[in-house]
Amino acid sequence: MTLLSANEFEGRLRAIGAERYHNRHAFHRLLHDGKLNKGQVQAWALNRYIYQSRIPIKDAIIVSRLPTPELRATWRVRIEDHDGTDGSDGGIARWLKLTGGLGLDGAMVTSEQAALPATIFAADAYVHFVQNRSVLEAVASSLTELFAPTIIAERVEGMLGGYDFVTKETLAYFGKRMTQAPRDADFALRYCIEHARTRKEQQLCLDALTFKCNVLWAMLDALHFAYVTPGLIPPGAFKP
Amino acid sequence: MTLLSANEFEGRLRAIGAERYHNRHAFHRLLHDGKLNKGQVQAWALNRYIYQSRIPIKDAIIVSRLPTPELRATWRVRIEDHDGTDGSDGGIARWLKLTGGLGLDGAMVTSEQAALPATIFAADAYVHFVQNRSVLEAVASSLTELFAPTIIAERVEGMLGGYDFVTKETLAYFGKRMTQAPRDADFALRYCIEHARTRKEQQLCLDALTFKCNVLWAMLDALHFAYVTPGLIPPGAFKP
Repeated sequence: MTLLSANEFEGRLRAIGAERYHNRHAFHRLLHDGKLNKGQVQAWALNRYIYQSRIPIKDAIIVSRLPTPELRATWRVRIEDHDGTDGSDGGIARWLKLTGGLGLDGAMVTSEQAALPATIFAADAYVHFVQNRSVLEAVASSLTELFAPTIIAERVEGMLGGYDFVTKETLAYFGKRMTQAPRDADFALRYCIEHARTRKEQQLCLDALTFKCNVLWAMLDALHFAYVTPGLIPPGAFKP
Repeated sequence: MTLLSANEFEGRLRAIGAERYHNRHAFHRLLHDGKLNKGQVQAWALNRYIYQSRIPIKDAIIVSRLPTPELRATWRVRIEDHDGTDGSDGGIARWLKLTGGLGLDGAMVTSEQAALPATIFAADAYVHFVQNRSVLEAVASSLTELFAPTIIAERVEGMLGGYDFVTKETLAYFGKRMTQAPRDADFALRYCIEHARTRKEQQLCLDALTFKCNVLWAMLDALHFAYVTPGLIPPGAFKP
């Protein structure tokens, strides 16, 4: 295997997104087409909270593994984006505005008791991945952000148009992400291009991105199974 | 909360199994009623391989955390059960006889490339659980073995009767487990009764068993979603 050029490498990364990013999942299409009922949207939001809650944790692990003040400072901004200056004004707080706007009790959401076990296993797999793999793979696994603006734009437009129980204010989380995600993805992409110096390291990056797409996909599989078709909710999980 | 008597504690543990063990899952019923086609049984076997492959790993972690030669020696037998004396005659080798008997290539199965990501996330969650929780919780999470004989008997009878592509020889794995599981469960149950000395510790045991039931349940959810209803196979996973 010969080293891919930067352009070829970026092309392979983007091809993984084109095939495997969760904007292609049946559940996402139902969500943005306004085809779900309120209970199904609630189930999505409270399960997605699990993922949101793990993001600053996985970013703190990555910060702990980066070798220079400059790299750590750049990545630390991601933790601040999600936790806010004092916990009340970051991405997680905005996500809880979304769940609250959908009528869910905040303590129920943050207790994680009603989430699907499969969601927790998938989100925790992401945390363990950035802990146990190389720093290069940990950074590469964040590259789903490359594809986030598209799905966020679809989600916001579809949800505002499709559901009368969703307001622009409850979707504030996504507004912020429209600028944060491209900034983060741009940095991570340049990092991977610069640090993957062998074809094997490039392959590890491609595999890390595939893994991350699998995490997001599996969460929608679990939602679809429990709340759409066949609609078999596991013991103990949220019942709309 | 006051301490439960040994009988009450055991009763609570058994009640979790009665409600949440995966013999109650729709996919298990389809499997043992002979209602699946060969591709669906293949998907079950190659995904269940992921779980089997993690068992000696999680048991080795538990051995590494037990404090006395006596306890370690007792638990070490479990590793031997799955890995065999030289790798060729243990539970994993018998599982590969099952997948081989179903017509699956062994290298494909052990590569894990065709397994559902959700299966891998669930099985790895079990490994991380025994690494990160207390030894008492790690031991308690093994208590699903209390319920194994019932499901194994159902599986063997149902599979032999329901599928002409299944032979008694390919199901040799389950024969061994009929004696190993009760021996192991008996030890683990006595360990938990002896070492859970506060109501809080008893609750941690109950929660650990619930967690483990969730692991097994989530694996069948993922199989059912991908291969039965709605039958949406995630990108990259086994296509019968």
